[in-house]
Amino acid sequence: MRDLLTISVDAMSGDRGASPAVDAVCAMLTEAPGLRVLLFGDEGQLNSLLSDLPADAAARVELRHAPDVVAMDEAPRDAVRRKKSSSMRLAIDAVKAGEAQACVSAGNTGALMAIARFALKTLPGISRPAIISAVPARGGRTCMLDLGANADCNARQLFEFAVMGTVVVSDIYAIERPRVALLNIGEEQIKGTDAIREAAAQLESSSLNYVGFVEGNDIFSGAADVIVSDGFTGNVALKTMEGLARFVALQTRRRFRKNWASRLAGLAALPVLRSLQASLDPRRYNGASLVGLNGIVIKSHGSADSVAWQTAIRSAMLEVDKGVPVQISRLLETQLTETQAP
Amino acid sequence: MRDLLTISVDAMSGDRGASPAVDAVCAMLTEAPGLRVLLFGDEGQLNSLLSDLPADAAARVELRHAPDVVAMDEAPRDAVRRKKSSSMRLAIDAVKAGEAQACVSAGNTGALMAIARFALKTLPGISRPAIISAVPARGGRTCMLDLGANADCNARQLFEFAVMGTVVVSDIYAIERPRVALLNIGEEQIKGTDAIREAAAQLESSSLNYVGFVEGNDIFSGAADVIVSDGFTGNVALKTMEGLARFVALQTRRRFRKNWASRLAGLAALPVLRSLQASLDPRRYNGASLVGLNGIVIKSHGSADSVAWQTAIRSAMLEVDKGVPVQISRLLETQLTETQAP
Repeated sequence: MRDLLTISVDAMSGDRGASPAVDAVCAMLTEAPGLRVLLFGDEGQLNSLLSDLPADAAARVELRHAPDVVAMDEAPRDAVRRKKSSSMRLAIDAVKAGEAQACVSAGNTGALMAIARFALKTLPGISRPAIISAVPARGGRTCMLDLGANADCNARQLFEFAVMGTVVVSDIYAIERPRVALLNIGEEQIKGTDAIREAAAQLESSSLNYVGFVEGNDIFSGAADVIVSDGFTGNVALKTMEGLARFVALQTRRRFRKNWASRLAGLAALPVLRSLQASLDPRRYNGASLVGLNGIVIKSHGSADSVAWQTAIRSAMLEVDKGVPVQISRLLETQLTETQAP
Repeated sequence: MRDLLTISVDAMSGDRGASPAVDAVCAMLTEAPGLRVLLFGDEGQLNSLLSDLPADAAARVELRHAPDVVAMDEAPRDAVRRKKSSSMRLAIDAVKAGEAQACVSAGNTGALMAIARFALKTLPGISRPAIISAVPARGGRTCMLDLGANADCNARQLFEFAVMGTVVVSDIYAIERPRVALLNIGEEQIKGTDAIREAAAQLESSSLNYVGFVEGNDIFSGAADVIVSDGFTGNVALKTMEGLARFVALQTRRRFRKNWASRLAGLAALPVLRSLQASLDPRRYNGASLVGLNGIVIKSHGSADSVAWQTAIRSAMLEVDKGVPVQISRLLETQLTETQAP
């Protein structure tokens, strides 16, 4: 029999409470007979949500009581100091203790990153962990990092992000030599910051598949598999997308509801509009990874439903299966040897 | 009779050649009897494009031959040094010489900014000029700056952008006390860069209507009238919007063309989809301003058609009418007096 793979799940920290997390855990336990789950949260609440689970699946979930919850607006520093018995902290501690191979949480990103850094520490050779996620693009998707863990980044950190992004994309999406690009702006006069120009030079002399600079519009053009930026720029780009997508959806609804003719047209167009929305649906892309840590931590959207939670758990299982942290260390070592060679 | 208002037009530097610029000039001369235009470009070409103009309008356009053109991919430095007889340079020189009150060009932004800075110089008290433009948002629009003129910005520069944005928005959109926000990211742990935090402190103690930090998604939420950022972040956000809008349009077309049922639905939905596209149409928002200079320079989209060109010329006329540069100097002076007061 194949070894069981154990995921620790923080069921309490998302916007929608424990229910979508537990639903997803139940579905995944049924789907994946090799999966074991440590479920952290309020014992009473979780027990009642788990009551319908078939015996086979129930045998593979272990409920662990956590009396505390990290709030969505809690300052990361406070979460690290004060929430030592929160579901988030205990779920990450389970990874640190080797009881679980990965952790999934829908909690506040800043707190999750702070607790994960504190408990798991960064991989040797990595200065700062980063947040990576996929966004829809022509031909499939583009992965972007950093999405908000590090506001200012130097060239070395951008280079490390490129290494981490290469590993995640090749492992998760089975792309052999992912094309890596640096996010930049197009005006020649001020072609990027010093950090970006230096990172470009380092990437050009590396063995990574570096394809050069891209601009904001290239996120969706399929020009690269991995787009690297500092966390400030990446976060603004991500939030800009989310905002524009919501604005377009709102405008579309408003215009189709204007009068009975447009309502009829909307009805006719509904299947297409739904398939369009599904293709842009963040749930399909759910599961940002916190990379560069001594352990695997997946961040689900705060408002993730059961479907999105399942995607996040699947990402965690895949990263465990591929051994993402070990791969990052290995690729980084090769790069250092190469770039330091005479 | 009201004094004539003179706009210098660089008809040659856009992606689509002189025709949309000349068409727009003809339309605007007919629409605005107080408008006079100095038209810079290839004399032969422009003459033939102007041949149908009614006598009254023809009397208010003066054709000035420019033997050279700044290429779309020309390095700004080269444009300043080598293209002294280009349509772009001569059109800006006309503003410098006081022959025109504003200049409109659809040429390469970097070159336009470099030539404008070189020829017109910045306003007293302004460290760096910036690029400002409107994007669609709930309730109308949001104006953003800087969109790419300055990659790195310090707190003082961000503060100046806030002053310039306030003037442009109150003059152009008749909003009395525009709400000004700083673009930032949401993670508490790394709440922005030092420059942003310092700029926030300066804005809080100013008389501007500063409403705090916003995130990328707020660009479209109508949370602010002016959103201030460094030119790197602003440019990435703008290009990200353009890229996503194009991606969604492409996906929409593809899905409606899938089979005959979806084609029929697309036909029914066409009026709504068209009105939706129009509401997101960059042509309605065409005309970025280069602000902070001793003169008015409007940048039209490189691929602007005649409609977009007309919007740009209208913006130029409005800025002349309101005296935007003088207003900026005045508001800046008030701020300095206030913040330096004991």
